[in-house]
Amino acid sequence: MHSLLTEEKVFKDPIHNYVHVQDKTIWDLINTKEFQRLRRIRQLGTSYFTFHGAEHSRFSHSLGVYEITRRIISQFERQNYEDWSMEERLVTLCAALLHDIGHGPFSHSIEEAFDVHHEDWTCRILLENTEVHQVLEQVEKGFSKRVASIICKTYPNPIVVDLVTGPLDADRMDYLLRDAYYTGVHYGTFDLDRILRVLRPYKGRVVVKESGMHAVEHYLMSRYQMYWQVYFHPVTRSSELMLRLIFQRATELYRSGYRFKYFLPPLDSLFEGTLTAQQYVQLDEAFVQTMFTQWMSEEDERLAELSQRFMERKLYKYVELDEMKESYKTLLREQWERVGLDPDYDLWFDYPTDMPYDVYRSGEVPSQQHILLLDRQYELVELSKRSDIVHSISGLRRGKAYIYYPVDKLMHVRDKLSEEAKQLLRFDRHIK
Amino acid sequence: MHSLLTEEKVFKDPIHNYVHVQDKTIWDLINTKEFQRLRRIRQLGTSYFTFHGAEHSRFSHSLGVYEITRRIISQFERQNYEDWSMEERLVTLCAALLHDIGHGPFSHSIEEAFDVHHEDWTCRILLENTEVHQVLEQVEKGFSKRVASIICKTYPNPIVVDLVTGPLDADRMDYLLRDAYYTGVHYGTFDLDRILRVLRPYKGRVVVKESGMHAVEHYLMSRYQMYWQVYFHPVTRSSELMLRLIFQRATELYRSGYRFKYFLPPLDSLFEGTLTAQQYVQLDEAFVQTMFTQWMSEEDERLAELSQRFMERKLYKYVELDEMKESYKTLLREQWERVGLDPDYDLWFDYPTDMPYDVYRSGEVPSQQHILLLDRQYELVELSKRSDIVHSISGLRRGKAYIYYPVDKLMHVRDKLSEEAKQLLRFDRHIK
Amino acid sequence: MHSLLTEEKVFKDPIHNYVHVQDKTIWDLINTKEFQRLRRIRQLGTSYFTFHGAEHSRFSHSLGVYEITRRIISQFERQNYEDWSMEERLVTLCAALLHDIGHGPFSHSIEEAFDVHHEDWTCRILLENTEVHQVLEQVEKGFSKRVASIICKTYPNPIVVDLVTGPLDADRMDYLLRDAYYTGVHYGTFDLDRILRVLRPYKGRVVVKESGMHAVEHYLMSRYQMYWQVYFHPVTRSSELMLRLIFQRATELYRSGYRFKYFLPPLDSLFEGTLTAQQYVQLDEAFVQTMFTQWMSEEDERLAELSQRFMERKLYKYVELDEMKESYKTLLREQWERVGLDPDYDLWFDYPTDMPYDVYRSGEVPSQQHILLLDRQYELVELSKRSDIVHSISGLRRGKAYIYYPVDKLMHVRDKLSEEAKQLLRFDRHIK
Amino acid sequence: MHSLLTEEKVFKDPIHNYVHVQDKTIWDLINTKEFQRLRRIRQLGTSYFTFHGAEHSRFSHSLGVYEITRRIISQFERQNYEDWSMEERLVTLCAALLHDIGHGPFSHSIEEAFDVHHEDWTCRILLENTEVHQVLEQVEKGFSKRVASIICKTYPNPIVVDLVTGPLDADRMDYLLRDAYYTGVHYGTFDLDRILRVLRPYKGRVVVKESGMHAVEHYLMSRYQMYWQVYFHPVTRSSELMLRLIFQRATELYRSGYRFKYFLPPLDSLFEGTLTAQQYVQLDEAFVQTMFTQWMSEEDERLAELSQRFMERKLYKYVELDEMKESYKTLLREQWERVGLDPDYDLWFDYPTDMPYDVYRSGEVPSQQHILLLDRQYELVELSKRSDIVHSISGLRRGKAYIYYPVDKLMHVRDKLSEEAKQLLRFDRHIK
Repeated sequence: MHSLLTEEKVFKDPIHNYVHVQDKTIWDLINTKEFQRLRRIRQLGTSYFTFHGAEHSRFSHSLGVYEITRRIISQFERQNYEDWSMEERLVTLCAALLHDIGHGPFSHSIEEAFDVHHEDWTCRILLENTEVHQVLEQVEKGFSKRVASIICKTYPNPIVVDLVTGPLDADRMDYLLRDAYYTGVHYGTFDLDRILRVLRPYKGRVVVKESGMHAVEHYLMSRYQMYWQVYFHPVTRSSELMLRLIFQRATELYRSGYRFKYFLPPLDSLFEGTLTAQQYVQLDEAFVQTMFTQWMSEEDERLAELSQRFMERKLYKYVELDEMKESYKTLLREQWERVGLDPDYDLWFDYPTDMPYDVYRSGEVPSQQHILLLDRQYELVELSKRSDIVHSISGLRRGKAYIYYPVDKLMHVRDKLSEEAKQLLRFDRHIK
Repeated sequence: MHSLLTEEKVFKDPIHNYVHVQDKTIWDLINTKEFQRLRRIRQLGTSYFTFHGAEHSRFSHSLGVYEITRRIISQFERQNYEDWSMEERLVTLCAALLHDIGHGPFSHSIEEAFDVHHEDWTCRILLENTEVHQVLEQVEKGFSKRVASIICKTYPNPIVVDLVTGPLDADRMDYLLRDAYYTGVHYGTFDLDRILRVLRPYKGRVVVKESGMHAVEHYLMSRYQMYWQVYFHPVTRSSELMLRLIFQRATELYRSGYRFKYFLPPLDSLFEGTLTAQQYVQLDEAFVQTMFTQWMSEEDERLAELSQRFMERKLYKYVELDEMKESYKTLLREQWERVGLDPDYDLWFDYPTDMPYDVYRSGEVPSQQHILLLDRQYELVELSKRSDIVHSISGLRRGKAYIYYPVDKLMHVRDKLSEEAKQLLRFDRHIK
Repeated sequence: MHSLLTEEKVFKDPIHNYVHVQDKTIWDLINTKEFQRLRRIRQLGTSYFTFHGAEHSRFSHSLGVYEITRRIISQFERQNYEDWSMEERLVTLCAALLHDIGHGPFSHSIEEAFDVHHEDWTCRILLENTEVHQVLEQVEKGFSKRVASIICKTYPNPIVVDLVTGPLDADRMDYLLRDAYYTGVHYGTFDLDRILRVLRPYKGRVVVKESGMHAVEHYLMSRYQMYWQVYFHPVTRSSELMLRLIFQRATELYRSGYRFKYFLPPLDSLFEGTLTAQQYVQLDEAFVQTMFTQWMSEEDERLAELSQRFMERKLYKYVELDEMKESYKTLLREQWERVGLDPDYDLWFDYPTDMPYDVYRSGEVPSQQHILLLDRQYELVELSKRSDIVHSISGLRRGKAYIYYPVDKLMHVRDKLSEEAKQLLRFDRHIK
Repeated sequence: MHSLLTEEKVFKDPIHNYVHVQDKTIWDLINTKEFQRLRRIRQLGTSYFTFHGAEHSRFSHSLGVYEITRRIISQFERQNYEDWSMEERLVTLCAALLHDIGHGPFSHSIEEAFDVHHEDWTCRILLENTEVHQVLEQVEKGFSKRVASIICKTYPNPIVVDLVTGPLDADRMDYLLRDAYYTGVHYGTFDLDRILRVLRPYKGRVVVKESGMHAVEHYLMSRYQMYWQVYFHPVTRSSELMLRLIFQRATELYRSGYRFKYFLPPLDSLFEGTLTAQQYVQLDEAFVQTMFTQWMSEEDERLAELSQRFMERKLYKYVELDEMKESYKTLLREQWERVGLDPDYDLWFDYPTDMPYDVYRSGEVPSQQHILLLDRQYELVELSKRSDIVHSISGLRRGKAYIYYPVDKLMHVRDKLSEEAKQLLRFDRHIK
């Protein structure tokens, strides 16, 4: 059963000014404990180590994705586009609001360490016995499955999927603007209102009227800049490395039967891989940080050291390389062992890459990753065929190469390093 | 020993664009574990329950206070004001950076519950065996005491004290702008650059050139608006109440010998009042929230209920009253007992007040709380004597009265309440 | 006949992001020559001499007033307020768009000099044979009269009048925000979206829901600040004085039969007071400035001097006085004559005043100038009865006193001035 | 003789917050009549017809260019870069302030019509008998020539030239930010503070530290967007066409001995090509617009029509073509003649092009148009060799093709047009 609130509710939001809630279901979802938990999970994980302002949560972002989706749909309905069905409204809004509900604390690192995926957890939270599930099923039986299928991209109406997870989706639009605002960088800003005005549901896709092409170019450039200036910032990568190493060490210890001084539930289920949805939502950044604080006094020195590095921001330093060669890895691992360091813990090679826009080959059928323009003759054209600038950068794969290591430890043994290694590490920078 | 960094370091900041660090001491202080801990303490405590964007930390704010102070001093030195001594520069910057280092998690509530004061902790952290203390003493022996005395307002040069804790200090200027930015409200913005340009050290005070009077009026109005729109927002007050009740309950239980299922150090020292500075800095919001999450499964129902209310944002509702009468309190406490509720836990009367500007009486000597204008004849005049608008609002004490209570519990017993009580609570609002 | 555009048109606007036009009548009005002429009349007259960014026109402002009105009405219609009639929509929008169409170049000065009133010209342009008149009459016969009666406040529905010319009207809301944006000052900003959300048509007035009281306080404070920081800035007053003196001199010359070297139509009709609406719309700032440029070479020295002062910004300087006394005027006029200056041209006493909010006396019926709050019991209460801060400043009449004079001329004869006069003029400031 | 002001003066500016003036020479230059005249010349010419907010003047922009230059130099001096000589400070600031002083009203169109160049006029105003010239010569004899040689790029120190007219000069940085602000588009914003921090004088160029590469990429993208979204907007191009046609017609008439009803000096000197610098500075937009208003009543119908089109914004409409073919031109000119229109006045083909960044070929010596990075090994590298994204778009020449014509005239004769012509003009769009 779907009902409207007697009076519209609003949330004050720095990005969208106000987030408007008109449906009782949306209001109830926001008030579930699973959604409230998103307040305790930062949107940008450890980026706050690099940009101190980046302390915003997935709660804020989720409201933002919901609000952008609401505005797009409201524009669709005002224009009476025939490819949009008003019956899709609520299910789309729920999917937009909940698309990130399965995120754990410091997602990327925890997912890698424990081989879990936030998309799976999103579905479990929607479908298992949770408050979110109950609210959704009150709309109608099976509604939670409909919402989940949008997030899994198996929903029958591809326009709905495009809105929530397409190349111009509400998710990306919100996070670029929000992350730019909270970090304070200018790169992520683009003309949201303009893009909202030129989106249109058409033949199974959310497409862009050709007059809006430049606004989309600008959005792609903003996205590209945010990747290199913010998301891939080497200080952030270094802090993510700390996280991964902590989880790696703790798992090793747990499996080896090590007895932790401090160990709160449901950490054991996490290590065992037997977490229930109920337990999963107990995991938040407060929990992880509290564990690390306690582990700073663990007897295992490696775990204690790594936990301290993370909590007190004594991160590994980095060196940028002109290119990444296998020979560098061999060289440094060998050197590390020679001076008594553990290359599995004290050394990391990183090579992040990003593509501003996927290449599109003439004749090919455009995929879901391609942006389509609707031209004046109502023909669909893939973006890079019309935009010279997008054409130029299509398929461009940008990569940077870095080495991370604990400078403080190396300092004591630097004389034992070969000249080649010292040069590679540009080690003299650290000696005043 | 004071030394400059070989190259200026910057932090990207959304409010000040860049925070500039030139002194090695400042850089080292930022990298201490005590200062890094401020990342885990939100600037606005529980305000994020009302304004979801208000997730910024005291770390960000402390950098901001430092930066504003740096700019003021730099302006003083550029103008060669004779009342400013360049020797005060570093000690002032350190005090600005560290003035909030003693804040605990959710300070206001925890301070009330345990009768501690963040100012005391600030001094202990500066003076006891901490990383901060060590960095300060490297400047020169006794330097940490000089810094502490600024924060305690016992420093001999009142201009320095004024910069850090006066009526137009860097602290307030940063938090108004920063809190406005992160909450998204417009009320807190004022012309910082203009104010910085018109400040001047003069005869033992930081005074304002008369030409800047309107900018100061605007700042006072912004401050007033922020108090009523943000800091005293009843939803925030309600969440602070939850915190106080949790701490109150846990203390009662601890003193009564109750055996907690989950209880991490250094909670016992907190209850005992024997915390060391080392232990104190282990307290952060992660710790508090993790305790609360665990306590949701405690056997004591009250503690479990309150912890859940806080973690899942099931706060007490509020009713605004036209005035606060003792008879209301008597009436409701009596009614609460009649329906089986505990007025010590299920009821709260709140009456926050604020004064936009302290009244100044003619003939009186202006106090440190008064703002002084420097007029064209180089005379000092108290602000309200020149500004009609400040004169009008001087001494105005604004107050609002609220009752807070758990509507959900009252719903079940509402028929037992007297008509008078129902009317006072405007209880029918909650029944659809 | 009222018809919608086949596709909504938008104007990119820095204040409202986009101005949306849906009605053909609005589109056609914007394209009339009388409306396009507003591009050649600056919103803030000579304020650009003080704030170089203040170069925006009445065209931009008129679109803004229209857009705010459109949003308010659209909010009214979304909420289905019963006190609002959808039939008032178009006539209200037209009145909002056209309310300033009668403004001439540098209105305030020209109106004073020639005793004309822009409101009269607005009505003549609406009702006489103009393109605007023709577009309005196409809606239905007599429609131009309906629009004019809103601007003259004789329209039968007071809610419509309130929207266009009430104490919280779209006109003031746009100009505060726009003037703040273009000058670059921060004082004029307030939370427009919030105010739009709390406005409501009720019992013949546009009232404010009580929950929005603080936003209205903030708006009143912004208005107050803008008056003193921008609108009454003494440099702007001085440039307006130049204008008035030029018009005064030219009229004197015209009446005395002086033969101007350069004199374009319709200047004679302006001097004679026989301008038709057709001629009136030929007057714009380009015309006035071109006349002044030519007059810089007139034989009449006074006219040439004043024209040059205006065009080259060689304005009279000002001195602020603590109070305005008649004896000052007598003294200086006498001194001026003694040193051979003409007190009618070379001297001006100015005493601008403003009231932040009109006083409201208990028992009185609130006038159209008072803002009404709609409280939780659906009672209307005058703002100052609820807002302590508005109460404090009600009826506060703020004034400043200035003397303006040509410092350059006085310099040559300063030795002849009495000591009293020199002191009053604080003349030594100008001598290095 | 160079002297400092006793007190720094500031201008409130929306882009840079405050423009700071410390030198008496700069202050005096701003107060010359030639500089004040820039208030009457819009920065973006006729762009206000497209973006109504774009009403800002060259006066504002010139102050902005000065301010950015001042900040760069002040950064150079703070860092004690050895490639910067403090003796270049004042001459550089003067050149920055005055670089646009030769601009006439609606420069681009008037320059084309009369074959004049604003750079030549800039030099004449600096070197002939003007107030600007006098102020400059007071610094030292020959100083005006030094300033002029920077603008002509013949100054011996190429770093100074680079600051004022290089690929990352203060001129472009100010106009991108300012034009974005006044039009309200978001495309032109980039991180000015970041770019200022990474500029460095080095071996005869102003180069960019490699760490600032992304900020420069972002700046180039902003510039590219502004060209296509703002500067080349077809409505603006259409209004420039009107201007050119008016000047073309008036010149034809003047040369043919036509007797104008209204004709103010110094229009004859403009037509004759004998303008003096004194006369030139009398030309401003007020003058041009006043002439056009008068010409609306000229007997020559073409001149009257074109003047009216410009003043009342009845511009030619445009059609975008996929490509520009000679055959289109032949076809339409022939058709135009057939239906009795004059292809020299009633038809225009436009093909604006822009290059985001000049291609750089390996091995080549980088020209003044290339941006150089200073890498960690203190080597200079041309930007596109390091930036993949700049490399991708280097040499990309973007062009669009348009036809402009008076739709209103064509409407009456549309049946006489060939099908091919109708299709090319997509004429049916205009018929409802």
